[in-house]
Amino acid sequence: MKPDWIAVDWGTTHLRAWAMGAEGIRASAESDDGMGRLSRDAFEAALIRLIDPWLGGGVTPVVACGMVGSRQGWFEAPYRTVPCAPLTQGTLAHVPVKDPRISVQIAPGLKQTKPADVMRGEETQIAGALALDPGFDGAICLPGTHSKWAQVSAGEVVSFQTFLTGELYALLAEHSVLRHGLSEGWEDAYFDEGVAEGLSHPERLMAQLFRLRAEGLIAGLSGPAARARLSGLLIGAELAAAKAWWLGLPILLIGSSRLTAIYARALAMQGASTRSLSATDCTIAGLALAAGALTRAAE
Amino acid sequence: MKPDWIAVDWGTTHLRAWAMGAEGIRASAESDDGMGRLSRDAFEAALIRLIDPWLGGGVTPVVACGMVGSRQGWFEAPYRTVPCAPLTQGTLAHVPVKDPRISVQIAPGLKQTKPADVMRGEETQIAGALALDPGFDGAICLPGTHSKWAQVSAGEVVSFQTFLTGELYALLAEHSVLRHGLSEGWEDAYFDEGVAEGLSHPERLMAQLFRLRAEGLIAGLSGPAARARLSGLLIGAELAAAKAWWLGLPILLIGSSRLTAIYARALAMQGASTRSLSATDCTIAGLALAAGALTRAAE
Repeated sequence: MKPDWIAVDWGTTHLRAWAMGAEGIRASAESDDGMGRLSRDAFEAALIRLIDPWLGGGVTPVVACGMVGSRQGWFEAPYRTVPCAPLTQGTLAHVPVKDPRISVQIAPGLKQTKPADVMRGEETQIAGALALDPGFDGAICLPGTHSKWAQVSAGEVVSFQTFLTGELYALLAEHSVLRHGLSEGWEDAYFDEGVAEGLSHPERLMAQLFRLRAEGLIAGLSGPAARARLSGLLIGAELAAAKAWWLGLPILLIGSSRLTAIYARALAMQGASTRSLSATDCTIAGLALAAGALTRAAE
Repeated sequence: MKPDWIAVDWGTTHLRAWAMGAEGIRASAESDDGMGRLSRDAFEAALIRLIDPWLGGGVTPVVACGMVGSRQGWFEAPYRTVPCAPLTQGTLAHVPVKDPRISVQIAPGLKQTKPADVMRGEETQIAGALALDPGFDGAICLPGTHSKWAQVSAGEVVSFQTFLTGELYALLAEHSVLRHGLSEGWEDAYFDEGVAEGLSHPERLMAQLFRLRAEGLIAGLSGPAARARLSGLLIGAELAAAKAWWLGLPILLIGSSRLTAIYARALAMQGASTRSLSATDCTIAGLALAAGALTRAAE
Protein backbone atom coordinates (compact mmCIF):
# COMPACT_ATOMS: atom_id res chain seq x y z
CA MET A 1 0.00 0.00 0.00
CA LYS A 2 1.31 3.38 -1.03
CA PRO A 3 2.57 5.41 1.96
CA ASP A 4 1.28 8.91 2.70
CA TRP A 5 4.85 10.16 2.64
CA ILE A 6 8.42 8.89 2.92
CA ALA A 7 10.91 9.93 5.60
CA VAL A 8 14.60 9.85 4.64
CA ASP A 9 17.72 10.16 6.79
CA TRP A 10 20.60 10.58 4.35
CA GLY A 11 24.03 10.95 5.89
CA THR A 12 27.61 10.63 4.73
CA THR A 13 27.73 6.84 4.95
CA HIS A 14 24.12 5.61 5.02
CA LEU A 15 20.73 6.12 3.41
CA ARG A 16 17.68 5.12 5.46
CA ALA A 17 14.03 5.47 4.48
CA TRP A 18 10.68 4.86 6.16
CA ALA A 19 7.30 4.44 4.47
CA MET A 20 4.92 6.49 6.62
CA GLY A 21 1.15 6.30 7.06
CA ALA A 22 -1.30 7.90 9.45
CA GLU A 23 -0.67 5.04 11.86
CA GLY A 24 3.12 5.56 11.81
CA ILE A 25 5.90 3.50 10.20
CA ARG A 26 4.68 0.96 7.63
CA ALA A 27 8.04 -0.21 6.32
CA SER A 28 11.70 0.71 6.40
CA ALA A 29 14.71 0.18 4.17
CA GLU A 30 18.37 1.14 4.14
CA SER A 31 21.45 1.03 1.95
CA ASP A 32 25.04 2.20 2.11
CA ASP A 33 24.49 4.75 -0.66
CA GLY A 34 25.66 7.53 1.64
CA MET A 35 26.36 11.04 0.35
CA GLY A 36 30.08 10.34 0.49
CA ARG A 37 30.02 7.83 -2.36
CA LEU A 38 27.53 9.48 -4.70
CA SER A 39 28.12 12.05 -7.44
CA ARG A 40 25.46 14.74 -7.74
CA ASP A 41 23.57 13.03 -10.56
CA ALA A 42 23.44 9.66 -8.78
CA PHE A 43 21.25 10.66 -5.83
CA GLU A 44 17.84 10.30 -7.47
CA ALA A 45 18.61 6.81 -8.79
CA ALA A 46 19.97 5.74 -5.38
CA LEU A 47 16.76 6.93 -3.71
CA ILE A 48 14.48 5.25 -6.28
CA ARG A 49 16.39 1.95 -5.91
CA LEU A 50 15.51 1.98 -2.23
CA ILE A 51 11.90 3.22 -2.27
CA ASP A 52 10.62 1.97 -5.65
CA PRO A 53 8.49 -0.82 -4.11
CA TRP A 54 6.57 1.79 -2.10
CA LEU A 55 5.66 4.06 -5.04
CA GLY A 56 2.27 3.83 -6.76
CA GLY A 57 -0.08 6.14 -8.65
CA GLY A 58 0.16 9.85 -7.88
CA VAL A 59 2.97 11.78 -6.26
CA THR A 60 4.47 10.63 -2.95
CA PRO A 61 6.15 13.38 -0.89
CA VAL A 62 9.68 12.56 0.28
CA VAL A 63 11.23 14.60 3.11
CA ALA A 64 14.95 14.13 3.77
CA CYS A 65 17.50 15.44 6.26
CA GLY A 66 21.26 15.13 6.72
CA MET A 67 24.35 15.64 4.58
CA VAL A 68 22.25 15.11 1.43
CA GLY A 69 21.51 18.84 1.72
CA SER A 70 25.15 19.95 1.90
CA ARG A 71 27.05 21.67 -0.89
CA GLN A 72 28.64 18.32 -1.79
CA GLY A 73 25.27 16.55 -1.61
CA TRP A 74 22.28 16.22 -3.92
CA PHE A 75 20.95 19.77 -3.64
CA GLU A 76 22.12 22.46 -1.27
CA ALA A 77 19.68 23.50 1.44
CA PRO A 78 21.49 26.58 2.81
CA TYR A 79 22.10 26.74 6.56
CA ARG A 80 19.67 28.78 8.66
CA THR A 81 21.26 30.92 11.38
CA VAL A 82 20.56 30.44 15.09
CA PRO A 83 18.75 31.57 17.15
CA CYS A 84 15.80 30.07 15.27
CA ALA A 85 13.34 27.19 15.41
CA PRO A 86 15.21 23.98 14.57
CA LEU A 87 13.00 23.24 11.55
CA THR A 88 9.97 24.88 9.94
CA GLN A 89 7.98 23.75 6.93
CA GLY A 90 8.48 26.87 4.85
CA THR A 91 12.26 26.58 4.81
CA LEU A 92 12.68 23.15 3.17
CA ALA A 93 14.56 23.10 -0.14
CA HIS A 94 12.58 21.70 -3.09
CA VAL A 95 14.76 19.38 -5.17
CA PRO A 96 14.12 19.14 -8.94
CA VAL A 97 13.53 15.46 -9.84
CA LYS A 98 12.88 13.51 -13.05
CA ASP A 99 10.71 10.71 -11.64
CA PRO A 100 7.08 11.96 -11.69
CA ARG A 101 6.12 9.67 -8.78
CA ILE A 102 7.99 11.67 -6.13
CA SER A 103 8.39 15.21 -4.85
CA VAL A 104 11.48 15.74 -2.71
CA GLN A 105 12.23 18.29 -0.02
CA ILE A 106 15.39 18.58 2.09
CA ALA A 107 15.64 20.07 5.58
CA PRO A 108 18.25 22.84 5.90
CA GLY A 109 20.97 22.59 8.54
CA LEU A 110 21.74 25.22 11.15
CA LYS A 111 24.76 27.44 11.49
CA GLN A 112 26.11 29.66 14.20
CA THR A 113 28.29 32.62 13.33
CA LYS A 114 30.33 33.07 16.48
CA PRO A 115 31.87 30.75 17.42
CA ALA A 116 31.47 29.24 13.95
CA ASP A 117 29.55 25.97 14.04
CA VAL A 118 27.28 23.90 11.80
CA MET A 119 24.87 20.97 11.99
CA ARG A 120 22.99 18.93 9.37
CA GLY A 121 20.52 16.29 10.47
CA GLU A 122 20.67 17.08 14.18
CA GLU A 123 18.31 20.06 13.69
CA THR A 124 15.68 17.53 12.56
CA GLN A 125 16.29 15.38 15.65
CA ILE A 126 15.98 18.44 17.89
CA ALA A 127 12.73 19.42 16.16
CA GLY A 128 11.51 15.86 16.68
CA ALA A 129 12.47 15.90 20.35
CA LEU A 130 10.49 19.11 20.81
CA ALA A 131 7.52 17.49 19.04
CA LEU A 132 7.76 14.46 21.33
CA ASP A 133 8.31 16.62 24.42
CA PRO A 134 6.52 19.94 23.77
CA GLY A 135 7.69 22.85 25.84
CA PHE A 136 11.09 21.38 26.69
CA ASP A 137 13.58 24.06 27.76
CA GLY A 138 17.18 23.19 28.59
CA ALA A 139 20.17 21.42 27.08
CA ILE A 140 19.95 18.84 24.31
CA CYS A 141 23.01 16.65 23.81
CA LEU A 142 23.42 14.51 20.67
CA PRO A 143 26.47 12.31 21.32
CA GLY A 144 28.17 10.75 18.31
CA THR A 145 30.99 11.17 15.80
CA HIS A 146 30.59 14.92 16.18
CA SER A 147 28.83 15.42 19.53
CA LYS A 148 26.51 18.42 19.67
CA TRP A 149 25.25 20.37 22.67
CA ALA A 150 22.35 22.75 21.97
CA GLN A 151 20.64 25.22 24.23
CA VAL A 152 16.92 25.15 23.53
CA SER A 153 14.43 27.70 24.80
CA ALA A 154 10.87 28.61 23.78
CA GLY A 155 11.01 26.24 20.81
CA GLU A 156 14.23 27.75 19.41
CA VAL A 157 17.84 26.62 19.24
CA VAL A 158 19.55 29.52 20.97
CA SER A 159 23.13 28.34 20.42
CA PHE A 160 25.09 25.13 19.99
CA GLN A 161 28.59 23.68 20.09
CA THR A 162 30.13 20.67 18.38
CA PHE A 163 32.87 18.43 19.81
CA LEU A 164 35.03 15.99 17.84
CA THR A 165 34.66 13.39 20.62
CA GLY A 166 33.41 10.34 18.72
CA GLU A 167 35.71 10.80 15.76
CA LEU A 168 38.70 11.27 18.06
CA TYR A 169 37.79 8.09 19.95
CA ALA A 170 37.64 6.11 16.71
CA LEU A 171 40.93 7.53 15.38
CA LEU A 172 42.74 6.86 18.65
CA ALA A 173 41.29 3.38 19.15
CA GLU A 174 41.87 2.22 15.59
CA HIS A 175 44.85 4.16 14.22
CA SER A 176 47.04 5.49 17.05
CA VAL A 177 49.71 3.83 19.17
CA LEU A 178 46.95 3.29 21.77
CA ARG A 179 45.36 0.58 19.59
CA HIS A 180 48.04 -1.88 20.80
CA GLY A 181 46.73 -1.58 24.35
CA LEU A 182 42.95 -1.63 23.73
CA SER A 183 40.67 -4.61 23.29
CA GLU A 184 36.98 -5.48 23.28
CA GLY A 185 35.22 -5.45 26.62
CA TRP A 186 34.45 -2.74 29.09
CA GLU A 187 35.03 -1.94 32.75
CA ASP A 188 32.68 0.60 34.31
CA ALA A 189 35.13 1.49 37.08
CA TYR A 190 37.74 2.57 34.53
CA PHE A 191 35.18 4.52 32.53
CA ASP A 192 34.18 6.37 35.71
CA GLU A 193 37.84 7.06 36.55
CA GLY A 194 38.39 8.44 33.03
CA VAL A 195 35.32 10.68 33.25
CA ALA A 196 36.47 12.04 36.63
CA GLU A 197 39.99 12.73 35.30
CA GLY A 198 38.76 14.20 32.03
CA LEU A 199 36.31 16.46 33.83
CA SER A 200 38.69 17.69 36.50
CA HIS A 201 41.75 18.06 34.23
CA PRO A 202 40.58 18.40 30.63
CA GLU A 203 43.73 20.40 29.88
CA ARG A 204 45.82 17.26 30.46
CA LEU A 205 44.07 15.25 27.74
CA MET A 206 47.08 14.65 25.48
CA ALA A 207 49.17 13.48 28.43
CA GLN A 208 46.37 11.29 29.80
CA LEU A 209 46.11 9.63 26.39
CA PHE A 210 49.77 8.61 26.36
CA ARG A 211 49.43 7.43 29.96
CA LEU A 212 47.02 4.74 28.71
CA ARG A 213 49.86 3.36 26.61
CA ALA A 214 52.44 3.65 29.40
CA GLU A 215 50.19 1.92 31.95
CA GLY A 216 49.64 -0.90 29.49
CA LEU A 217 53.41 -1.33 29.16
CA ILE A 218 54.55 -1.00 32.76
CA ALA A 219 51.50 -1.17 35.04
CA GLY A 220 49.43 -4.02 33.57
CA LEU A 221 46.43 -1.94 32.42
CA SER A 222 44.14 -4.40 30.61
CA GLY A 223 42.71 -3.88 27.12
CA PRO A 224 39.07 -3.53 28.24
CA ALA A 225 40.08 -1.20 31.10
CA ALA A 226 42.12 0.99 28.72
CA ARG A 227 39.23 1.12 26.25
CA ALA A 228 36.73 2.18 28.94
CA ARG A 229 39.13 4.79 30.36
CA LEU A 230 39.82 6.24 26.89
CA SER A 231 36.07 6.66 26.37
CA GLY A 232 35.72 8.18 29.83
CA LEU A 233 38.61 10.63 29.35
CA LEU A 234 37.16 11.96 26.09
CA ILE A 235 33.59 12.20 27.36
CA GLY A 236 34.84 13.79 30.60
CA ALA A 237 36.79 16.39 28.63
CA GLU A 238 33.71 17.09 26.52
CA LEU A 239 31.52 17.50 29.61
CA ALA A 240 34.10 19.88 31.13
CA ALA A 241 34.07 22.08 28.04
CA ALA A 242 30.27 21.83 27.75
CA LYS A 243 29.60 22.57 31.42
CA ALA A 244 28.04 25.94 30.66
CA TRP A 245 25.47 24.10 28.57
CA TRP A 246 24.26 21.59 31.13
CA LEU A 247 25.02 22.73 34.67
CA GLY A 248 21.73 23.10 36.53
CA LEU A 249 19.58 22.58 33.43
CA PRO A 250 17.30 19.73 32.35
CA ILE A 251 19.23 17.56 29.89
CA LEU A 252 17.81 15.56 27.00
CA LEU A 253 20.09 12.98 25.36
CA ILE A 254 19.38 11.93 21.76
CA GLY A 255 21.29 9.00 20.31
CA SER A 256 21.81 5.26 20.28
CA SER A 257 20.91 3.43 23.49
CA ARG A 258 24.59 2.56 24.01
CA LEU A 259 25.87 6.14 23.72
CA THR A 260 23.06 7.80 25.64
CA ALA A 261 23.57 5.26 28.46
CA ILE A 262 27.25 6.11 28.94
CA TYR A 263 26.62 9.86 28.69
CA ALA A 264 23.79 9.50 31.24
CA ARG A 265 26.18 7.60 33.52
CA ALA A 266 28.89 10.27 33.21
CA LEU A 267 26.42 13.09 33.84
CA ALA A 268 24.86 11.26 36.80
CA MET A 269 28.35 11.15 38.38
CA GLN A 270 28.13 14.98 38.33
CA GLY A 271 24.70 15.00 39.92
CA ALA A 272 22.96 15.86 36.65
CA SER A 273 19.81 13.97 35.72
CA THR A 274 18.99 13.21 32.11
CA ARG A 275 16.29 11.71 29.93
CA SER A 276 17.07 9.87 26.71
CA LEU A 277 15.29 9.63 23.37
CA SER A 278 16.12 7.36 20.45
CA ALA A 279 17.79 9.14 17.53
CA THR A 280 15.57 7.34 15.03
CA ASP A 281 12.36 8.29 16.85
CA CYS A 282 13.47 11.93 16.91
CA THR A 283 14.53 11.93 13.24
CA ILE A 284 11.16 10.55 12.13
CA ALA A 285 9.20 12.90 14.40
CA GLY A 286 11.20 15.85 13.05
CA LEU A 287 10.68 14.83 9.42
CA ALA A 288 6.97 14.30 10.13
CA LEU A 289 6.77 17.83 11.47
CA ALA A 290 8.50 19.12 8.36
CA ALA A 291 6.18 17.07 6.15
CA GLY A 292 3.21 18.53 7.94
CA ALA A 293 2.10 14.98 8.64
CA LEU A 294 1.58 15.56 12.33
CA THR A 295 -0.71 18.45 11.48
CA ARG A 296 -2.57 16.39 8.88
CA ALA A 297 -2.89 13.43 11.22
CA ALA A 298 -4.42 15.74 13.82
CA GLU A 299 -7.06 17.00 11.40
CA MET B 1 88.77 2.51 6.99
CA LYS B 2 87.25 0.59 9.87
CA PRO B 3 85.45 2.90 12.35
CA ASP B 4 86.28 2.91 16.06
CA TRP B 5 82.63 2.19 16.79
CA ILE B 6 79.22 2.43 15.18
CA ALA B 7 76.32 4.52 16.47
CA VAL B 8 72.80 3.26 15.72
CA ASP B 9 69.42 4.96 16.12
CA TRP B 10 66.81 2.22 15.60
CA GLY B 11 63.21 3.30 15.87
CA THR B 12 59.86 1.88 14.86
CA THR B 13 60.09 2.99 11.23
CA HIS B 14 63.76 3.69 10.51
CA LEU B 15 67.26 2.36 11.08
CA ARG B 16 70.11 4.86 10.95
CA ALA B 17 73.82 4.20 11.52
CA TRP B 18 76.98 6.29 11.73
CA ALA B 19 80.58 5.09 11.38
CA MET B 20 82.44 6.91 14.14
CA GLY B 21 86.13 7.74 14.54
CA ALA B 22 88.10 9.90 16.93
CA GLU B 23 87.44 12.87 14.63
CA GLY B 24 83.67 12.31 14.63
CA ILE B 25 81.33 10.98 11.94
CA ARG B 26 83.11 9.21 9.05
CA ALA B 27 80.07 7.90 7.20
CA SER B 28 76.35 7.41 7.65
CA ALA B 29 73.71 5.09 6.24
CA GLU B 30 70.02 4.47 6.73
CA SER B 31 67.25 2.08 5.75
CA ASP B 32 63.56 1.61 6.45
CA ASP B 33 64.20 -1.62 8.37
CA GLY B 34 62.45 -0.16 11.42
CA MET B 35 61.60 -2.31 14.44
CA GLY B 36 57.97 -2.38 13.33
CA ARG B 37 58.65 -4.53 10.26
CA LEU B 38 61.25 -6.94 11.64
CA SER B 39 60.74 -10.24 13.42
CA ARG B 40 63.13 -10.91 16.30
CA ASP B 41 65.53 -13.06 14.25
CA ALA B 42 65.75 -10.52 11.41
CA PHE B 43 67.45 -7.70 13.32
CA GLU B 44 71.05 -8.86 13.04
CA ALA B 45 70.80 -9.39 9.27
CA ALA B 46 69.15 -5.97 8.82
CA LEU B 47 71.98 -4.33 10.75
CA ILE B 48 74.72 -6.18 8.83
CA ARG B 49 73.12 -5.25 5.49
CA LEU B 50 73.53 -1.60 6.45
CA ILE B 51 76.98 -1.57 8.10
CA ASP B 52 78.78 -4.42 6.30
CA PRO B 53 80.99 -2.08 4.21
CA TRP B 54 82.36 -0.57 7.42
CA LEU B 55 83.39 -3.84 9.08
CA GLY B 56 86.99 -5.13 8.91
CA GLY B 57 89.33 -7.26 11.03
CA GLY B 58 88.61 -7.42 14.76
CA VAL B 59 85.43 -6.59 16.61
CA THR B 60 83.65 -3.26 16.04
CA PRO B 61 81.46 -2.09 18.95
CA VAL B 62 77.91 -1.11 17.99
CA VAL B 63 75.83 0.99 20.38
CA ALA B 64 72.13 1.38 19.63
CA CYS B 65 69.18 3.22 21.11
CA GLY B 66 65.44 3.35 20.47
CA MET B 67 62.61 0.88 20.08
CA VAL B 68 65.12 -1.84 19.13
CA GLY B 69 65.45 -2.37 22.90
CA SER B 70 61.72 -2.81 23.54
CA ARG B 71 60.02 -6.10 24.35
CA GLN B 72 58.90 -6.32 20.70
CA GLY B 73 62.38 -5.39 19.47
CA TRP B 74 65.65 -7.28 19.01
CA PHE B 75 66.58 -7.72 22.65
CA GLU B 76 64.85 -6.18 25.64
CA ALA B 77 66.83 -3.56 27.55
CA PRO B 78 64.57 -3.15 30.60
CA TYR B 79 63.49 0.38 31.53
CA ARG B 80 65.39 2.15 34.28
CA THR B 81 63.29 4.13 36.75
CA VAL B 82 63.58 7.90 37.20
CA PRO B 83 64.99 9.80 38.98
CA CYS B 84 68.29 8.61 37.47
CA ALA B 85 71.00 9.68 35.02
CA PRO B 86 69.56 9.43 31.50
CA LEU B 87 72.18 6.91 30.40
CA THR B 88 75.20 5.26 31.99
CA GLN B 89 77.68 2.81 30.48
CA GLY B 90 77.12 0.03 32.97
CA THR B 91 73.42 -0.31 32.22
CA LEU B 92 73.55 -1.13 28.49
CA ALA B 93 72.12 -4.51 27.46
CA HIS B 94 74.60 -6.82 25.69
CA VAL B 95 72.92 -8.49 22.71
CA PRO B 96 74.04 -12.03 21.70
CA VAL B 97 75.09 -11.96 18.02
CA LYS B 98 76.31 -14.52 15.47
CA ASP B 99 78.57 -12.30 13.37
CA PRO B 100 82.04 -12.27 15.04
CA ARG B 101 82.86 -8.83 13.61
CA ILE B 102 80.47 -6.94 15.89
CA SER B 103 79.56 -6.59 19.54
CA VAL B 104 76.19 -4.95 20.15
CA GLN B 105 74.86 -3.02 23.12
CA ILE B 106 71.47 -1.36 23.48
CA ALA B 107 70.64 1.63 25.68
CA PRO B 108 67.74 1.02 28.09
CA GLY B 109 64.78 3.38 28.10
CA LEU B 110 63.43 5.20 31.14
CA LYS B 111 60.19 4.71 32.99
CA GLN B 112 58.30 6.68 35.58
CA THR B 113 55.95 4.94 37.97
CA LYS B 114 53.50 7.68 38.87
CA PRO B 115 52.11 8.99 36.63
CA ALA B 116 53.08 6.03 34.46
CA ASP B 117 55.28 7.07 31.55
CA VAL B 118 57.99 5.62 29.33
CA MET B 119 60.64 6.73 26.83
CA ARG B 120 63.02 4.85 24.51
CA GLY B 121 65.58 6.79 22.50
CA GLU B 122 64.89 10.18 24.06
CA GLU B 123 67.00 9.23 27.14
CA THR B 124 69.99 9.00 24.78
CA GLN B 125 69.22 12.42 23.31
CA ILE B 126 68.93 13.90 26.81
CA ALA B 127 72.26 12.31 27.78
CA GLY B 128 73.75 13.76 24.60
CA ALA B 129 72.35 17.21 25.34
CA LEU B 130 73.93 17.09 28.81
CA ALA B 131 77.24 16.04 27.22
CA LEU B 132 77.03 18.95 24.77
CA ASP B 133 75.88 21.38 27.49
CA PRO B 134 77.40 20.11 30.76
CA GLY B 135 75.71 21.33 33.90
CA PHE B 136 72.38 22.17 32.22
CA ASP B 137 69.54 22.33 34.74
CA GLY B 138 65.98 22.99 33.65
CA ALA B 139 63.38 21.67 31.22
CA ILE B 140 64.17 19.61 28.15
CA CYS B 141 61.44 19.35 25.53
CA LEU B 142 61.62 16.79 22.72
CA PRO B 143 58.76 17.63 20.36
CA GLY B 144 57.61 14.93 17.96
CA THR B 145 55.08 12.15 17.46
CA HIS B 146 55.06 11.66 21.22
CA SER B 147 56.34 14.93 22.66
CA LYS B 148 58.32 14.61 25.89
CA TRP B 149 58.99 17.15 28.61
CA ALA B 150 61.72 16.19 31.09
CA GLN B 151 62.87 17.96 34.22
CA VAL B 152 66.64 17.67 34.44
CA SER B 153 68.69 18.52 37.50
CA ALA B 154 72.24 17.67 38.60
CA GLY B 155 72.70 15.34 35.63
CA GLU B 156 69.56 13.34 36.35
CA VAL B 157 66.14 13.08 34.78
CA VAL B 158 63.93 13.89 37.76
CA SER B 159 60.59 13.29 36.06
CA PHE B 160 59.02 13.45 32.61
CA GLN B 161 55.71 13.56 30.81
CA THR B 162 54.69 12.47 27.32
CA PHE B 163 52.03 14.11 25.14
CA LEU B 164 50.36 12.57 22.08
CA THR B 165 50.63 15.92 20.23
CA GLY B 166 52.41 14.92 17.01
CA GLU B 167 50.45 11.72 16.51
CA LEU B 168 47.18 13.55 17.11
CA TYR B 169 48.17 16.21 14.57
CA ALA B 170 48.89 13.57 11.94
CA LEU B 171 45.68 11.63 12.61
CA LEU B 172 43.55 14.77 12.48
CA ALA B 173 45.25 16.22 9.41
CA GLU B 174 45.24 12.99 7.41
CA HIS B 175 42.29 10.91 8.62
CA SER B 176 39.64 13.12 10.28
CA VAL B 177 36.90 15.31 8.81
CA LEU B 178 39.35 18.22 9.20
CA ARG B 179 41.44 16.91 6.30
CA HIS B 180 38.90 18.38 3.86
CA GLY B 181 39.73 21.88 5.10
CA LEU B 182 43.54 21.67 5.38
CA SER B 183 46.14 22.15 2.67
CA GLU B 184 49.86 22.71 2.29
CA GLY B 185 51.20 26.10 3.28
CA TRP B 186 51.36 27.92 6.56
CA GLU B 187 50.27 31.22 8.07
CA ASP B 188 52.15 32.36 11.16
CA ALA B 189 49.30 34.59 12.35
CA TYR B 190 46.93 31.61 12.51
CA PHE B 191 49.52 29.46 14.25
CA ASP B 192 49.92 32.21 16.87
CA GLU B 193 46.15 32.50 17.28
CA GLY B 194 45.91 28.72 17.75
CA VAL B 195 48.68 28.71 20.36
CA ALA B 196 47.00 31.53 22.28
CA GLU B 197 43.63 29.74 22.23
CA GLY B 198 45.10 26.34 23.07
CA LEU B 199 47.08 27.79 25.95
CA SER B 200 44.29 29.85 27.47
CA HIS B 201 41.50 27.27 26.93
CA PRO B 202 43.07 23.82 26.59
CA GLU B 203 39.85 22.32 27.96
CA ARG B 204 38.04 23.43 24.81
CA LEU B 205 40.29 21.46 22.46
CA MET B 206 37.65 19.11 21.02
CA ALA B 207 35.34 22.05 20.29
CA GLN B 208 38.15 24.16 18.82
CA LEU B 209 39.00 21.27 16.50
CA PHE B 210 35.48 21.13 15.05
CA ARG B 211 35.48 24.93 14.75
CA LEU B 212 38.28 24.59 12.16
CA ARG B 213 35.87 22.61 10.00
CA ALA B 214 32.95 24.98 10.60
CA GLU B 215 35.01 28.08 9.77
CA GLY B 216 36.14 26.41 6.56
CA LEU B 217 32.51 25.83 5.60
CA ILE B 218 30.91 29.13 6.59
CA ALA B 219 33.66 31.67 7.30
CA GLY B 220 36.15 31.12 4.48
CA LEU B 221 39.06 29.80 6.59
CA SER B 222 41.78 28.84 4.08
CA GLY B 223 43.59 25.49 3.99
CA PRO B 224 47.01 26.85 5.04
CA ALA B 225 45.43 28.97 7.80
CA ALA B 226 43.49 25.96 9.13
CA ARG B 227 46.64 23.82 9.05
CA ALA B 228 48.66 26.40 11.00
CA ARG B 229 45.86 26.93 13.53
CA LEU B 230 45.47 23.17 14.08
CA SER B 231 49.20 22.93 14.83
CA GLY B 232 48.97 25.95 17.14
CA LEU B 233 45.93 24.62 19.01
CA LEU B 234 47.63 21.30 19.77
CA ILE B 235 50.98 22.82 20.73
CA GLY B 236 49.20 25.45 22.83
CA ALA B 237 47.26 22.73 24.66
CA GLU B 238 50.50 20.82 25.24
CA LEU B 239 52.23 23.92 26.61
CA ALA B 240 49.27 24.58 28.93
CA ALA B 241 49.45 21.07 30.37
CA ALA B 242 53.27 21.22 30.54
CA LYS B 243 53.40 24.65 32.15
CA ALA B 244 54.71 23.26 35.44
CA TRP B 245 57.69 21.93 33.48
CA TRP B 246 58.80 25.12 31.79
CA LEU B 247 57.50 28.20 33.60
CA GLY B 248 60.48 30.23 34.79
CA LEU B 249 63.05 27.57 33.84
CA PRO B 250 65.72 27.42 31.14
CA ILE B 251 64.33 25.39 28.24
CA LEU B 252 66.29 23.21 25.84
CA LEU B 253 64.48 22.01 22.69
CA ILE B 254 65.73 18.86 20.98
CA GLY B 255 64.32 17.95 17.56
CA SER B 256 64.18 18.76 13.88
CA SER B 257 64.84 22.38 12.95
CA ARG B 258 61.23 22.74 11.75
CA LEU B 259 59.66 21.49 14.99
CA THR B 260 62.02 23.22 17.40
CA ALA B 261 61.41 26.49 15.50
CA ILE B 262 57.64 26.39 15.97
CA TYR B 263 57.92 25.33 19.62
CA ALA B 264 60.43 28.15 20.19
CA ARG B 265 57.98 30.59 18.57
CA ALA B 266 55.08 29.37 20.74
CA LEU B 267 57.17 29.56 23.93
CA ALA B 268 58.53 33.00 23.01
CA MET B 269 54.90 34.22 22.85
CA GLN B 270 54.74 33.29 26.55
CA GLY B 271 57.93 35.14 27.35
CA ALA B 272 59.97 31.96 27.66
CA SER B 273 63.38 31.82 26.01
CA THR B 274 64.71 28.58 24.56
CA ARG B 275 67.79 27.10 22.97
CA SER B 276 67.61 24.34 20.37
CA LEU B 277 69.81 21.34 19.61
CA SER B 278 69.57 18.98 16.65
CA ALA B 279 68.11 15.58 17.51
CA THR B 280 70.80 13.79 15.48
CA ASP B 281 73.64 15.65 17.21
CA CYS B 282 72.17 14.73 20.60
CA THR B 283 71.60 11.09 19.66
CA ILE B 284 75.19 10.67 18.50
CA ALA B 285 76.60 12.49 21.52
CA GLY B 286 74.52 10.29 23.82
CA LEU B 287 75.57 7.09 22.10
CA ALA B 288 79.22 8.26 22.21
CA LEU B 289 78.88 8.73 25.94
CA ALA B 290 77.44 5.24 26.27
CA ALA B 291 80.20 3.84 24.07
CA GLY B 292 82.80 5.51 26.26
CA ALA B 293 84.12 7.17 23.12
CA LEU B 294 84.10 10.63 24.57
CA THR B 295 86.23 9.37 27.44
CA ARG B 296 88.57 7.55 25.09
CA ALA B 297 88.85 10.58 22.81
CA ALA B 298 89.81 12.69 25.80
CA GLU B 299 92.61 10.33 26.81
